[in-house]
Amino acid sequence: MNSLIGKQINILDNGWIELQDIMGDDLAIVNAARASFLGESKGNEKDKRLLFYLMEHYHTGPFEQVEFKFRVKCPLFVARQWMRHRTWSYNELSRRYTSANIEFYIPDGNKWRKQSEINKQASDGFINAFYNNGFCSGRDFSKFLTFYCEDTLKYYNNLLDAGVAREMARMILPSNMYTEFIAKVDAHNLMHFLSLRMSPDAQYEIRVYAEAIYEHFFKPALPWTSEAFEKYRNRGWLVDKK
Amino acid sequence: MNSLIGKQINILDNGWIELQDIMGDDLAIVNAARASFLGESKGNEKDKRLLFYLMEHYHTGPFEQVEFKFRVKCPLFVARQWMRHRTWSYNELSRRYTSANIEFYIPDGNKWRKQSEINKQASDGFINAFYNNGFCSGRDFSKFLTFYCEDTLKYYNNLLDAGVAREMARMILPSNMYTEFIAKVDAHNLMHFLSLRMSPDAQYEIRVYAEAIYEHFFKPALPWTSEAFEKYRNRGWLVDKK
Amino acid sequence: MNSLIGKQINILDNGWIELQDIMGDDLAIVNAARASFLGESKGNEKDKRLLFYLMEHYHTGPFEQVEFKFRVKCPLFVARQWMRHRTWSYNELSRRYTSANIEFYIPDGNKWRKQSEINKQASDGFINAFYNNGFCSGRDFSKFLTFYCEDTLKYYNNLLDAGVAREMARMILPSNMYTEFIAKVDAHNLMHFLSLRMSPDAQYEIRVYAEAIYEHFFKPALPWTSEAFEKYRNRGWLVDKK
Amino acid sequence: MNSLIGKQINILDNGWIELQDIMGDDLAIVNAARASFLGESKGNEKDKRLLFYLMEHYHTGPFEQVEFKFRVKCPLFVARQWMRHRTWSYNELSRRYTSANIEFYIPDGNKWRKQSEINKQASDGFINAFYNNGFCSGRDFSKFLTFYCEDTLKYYNNLLDAGVAREMARMILPSNMYTEFIAKVDAHNLMHFLSLRMSPDAQYEIRVYAEAIYEHFFKPALPWTSEAFEKYRNRGWLVDKK
Repeated sequence: MNSLIGKQINILDNGWIELQDIMGDDLAIVNAARASFLGESKGNEKDKRLLFYLMEHYHTGPFEQVEFKFRVKCPLFVARQWMRHRTWSYNELSRRYTSANIEFYIPDGNKWRKQSEINKQASDGFINAFYNNGFCSGRDFSKFLTFYCEDTLKYYNNLLDAGVAREMARMILPSNMYTEFIAKVDAHNLMHFLSLRMSPDAQYEIRVYAEAIYEHFFKPALPWTSEAFEKYRNRGWLVDKK
Repeated sequence: MNSLIGKQINILDNGWIELQDIMGDDLAIVNAARASFLGESKGNEKDKRLLFYLMEHYHTGPFEQVEFKFRVKCPLFVARQWMRHRTWSYNELSRRYTSANIEFYIPDGNKWRKQSEINKQASDGFINAFYNNGFCSGRDFSKFLTFYCEDTLKYYNNLLDAGVAREMARMILPSNMYTEFIAKVDAHNLMHFLSLRMSPDAQYEIRVYAEAIYEHFFKPALPWTSEAFEKYRNRGWLVDKK
Repeated sequence: MNSLIGKQINILDNGWIELQDIMGDDLAIVNAARASFLGESKGNEKDKRLLFYLMEHYHTGPFEQVEFKFRVKCPLFVARQWMRHRTWSYNELSRRYTSANIEFYIPDGNKWRKQSEINKQASDGFINAFYNNGFCSGRDFSKFLTFYCEDTLKYYNNLLDAGVAREMARMILPSNMYTEFIAKVDAHNLMHFLSLRMSPDAQYEIRVYAEAIYEHFFKPALPWTSEAFEKYRNRGWLVDKK
Repeated sequence: MNSLIGKQINILDNGWIELQDIMGDDLAIVNAARASFLGESKGNEKDKRLLFYLMEHYHTGPFEQVEFKFRVKCPLFVARQWMRHRTWSYNELSRRYTSANIEFYIPDGNKWRKQSEINKQASDGFINAFYNNGFCSGRDFSKFLTFYCEDTLKYYNNLLDAGVAREMARMILPSNMYTEFIAKVDAHNLMHFLSLRMSPDAQYEIRVYAEAIYEHFFKPALPWTSEAFEKYRNRGWLVDKK
């Protein structure tokens, strides 16, 4: 287990997620369930069967006994979606305190997604025809965004130089700026997050964080739990992701 | 009580807060406390004394029995601070869904605050000397911000015109853009919010929302509770605000 | 809606549940959802369809905008199960404060349930053969329990008379003693409670409270929501209850 | 730190509390706070000063980053008070599942507390004059309670023998019966529990659990935090306990 602590996975162009700490494992979940009937571990096979029973029948309590603590670097608009999950504990970088280390998320030129015409909330494939507003290719979007962010950063520093308080100057910083935070959550509430944010409905930029958590931290830390999760809570994300 | 429902208070240049609904009053708090000893209301004087006792001794449970539901329009960076309060229920405007009604917070020319030199997190008074970067007065900051936001909005619409999904185009929208949300909370957790966000440490732009809640909704809805709150939980905000 | 407030439903032999207050209705849920896209009510048919969409796709946030406040009188072992639901606000009678109004739950003679032989956690039908320990009929169980509780109450009063603190004397009071509490919850978390406690797996004595909430308060207060709940969250409780 | 895991402290006559797991330490709290300004550890003295600053100014977030997991055996009425703390994760023994290992809390003969005449909720010293109801000494209370519990256990087993479901037979079990549970909580919410349950207002039987947590687990695991806690959150429990 300890070998997972400190592992960092790169995500998007400048983001990452790192597991800072973990408490508990599959057996901790099984033993929490056994507290109900003063039972004891009965060997791998029966332990695993009990864990599957818990998952299938939504006995969610025992899954709260495992904790994950991450450190995350992600764009602001991803952090905004993330922090709507109110059962996590967060400590985030504050732009009232510091103007250091400002970076922006710039999507690859071939990764600009089209507005879906049937789903008002979603994107639908990549943009491949360019007639409007002088954008002649996806790379032009990325170039535009790079220049835009460079200009914004220059304006931001101008405001600071002129004495404007950081808490005001930050108002011009856009939603693709990276932020950092520590985020701690129990395994039950993490599965809730994963099932929503690994879904094909979720925006791509948060889905890659959710998938990284699942593949690199959740599955190796909780192999039985993740097997049961895929069996009983699969809301399409296993089929649809590629 | 009902006369408060639907009341809307203007805040900052384009923001407001409206009370959409409320459940309970001072007496509901007193009666919740009396559930502990099967007691009944004993007339105003004793009821009020009981409520003060609850506040003084941190018997916080009964204050959870009162609910406030607001609709808020505020800048994004204010919403970010607000939503760190995890005991509220929120439903927010999503820029994945809609590109309508985009507005920005532009501070008055004489309200640009200086970076504090002793408190890294705070501002300290207004800027009154202007030598740097071509800013010759506070009005220049406001003008700059207005142009900046107009440009950003134009770029945003260009991206949309070119077919970019709303969920990506929104990445350039800055933190002073207004957002809207519905926010429901019980009186106990609202007092926690108020005591932090009415504090002189709080950033001005969220403090004005907290103060509006307190003056226009909390005090008239819960006169005894607010009197006890000022007596036992005053963390400087009554003295320091002007 | 107001006509539901103050309505009290008798449950078990001496218990009841009363709706003390309510905030919001089906339309409040729909309007909270519409905050996401700055939408407005579009008439009954489309409003209802939106609410069904929310339920089907687990967009649970808007259901948090409705609140129910109950006053409950139920046996202690029912209250223990109830209060494991941690998203409610509770104010309960304390036997440290008062020794008044002590009553016990005595099941009907023909309602004593047999231990299930296949489900360790459950009962399975009623007892109809009586050979052991001098119990010759179900009525004997009820008689025994009545005498037992009368004796216990006498001992309890003896301890109090002898000067023992209420907080210690209460130690002998059994789990079928009635308690009272105020319990407030939002509609989303109430549905979670209902789906677990109306289930055929739930113990009979809490199921009758859950069913009363559903039939007498939830359904009339939120007709669309309850229709959608039955369609998308039915975990067997609609089939199995009689 | 690891040396604390597995440590079990005996409490009351048959109870105990054991630390099953822990995540984080004082430095984890300091580092969570530093996430706000992208800071790093600056050596013991400054780290400790920062932690004291957090405690003094109610910056409670970083304290949520530390987790404690206990296993507890305590009387039912203590568990009832404990589980009113809704920010913990619990997994408790269920008397629907098992009739094994039933034990009762029997106070020492010289530890029976008198009802306070000025505080309706509290006890006040020990009983030392015995005129009523045949109780001639404190030891008579303890003897009575022992006999009472033996009888109750016999009746309980009779009901089970006669086929009554465990979930019904348990109704006669009194509030001084021991129960067991696993309980996990973060350091911030644990301090809230401690400040309420170590208070002289708290009932003796839960206070000894809170004190054991504090002395044997919290203080050795978080020496800086406990020092700051005693300095800034002491609500009388350090003076009043003996």
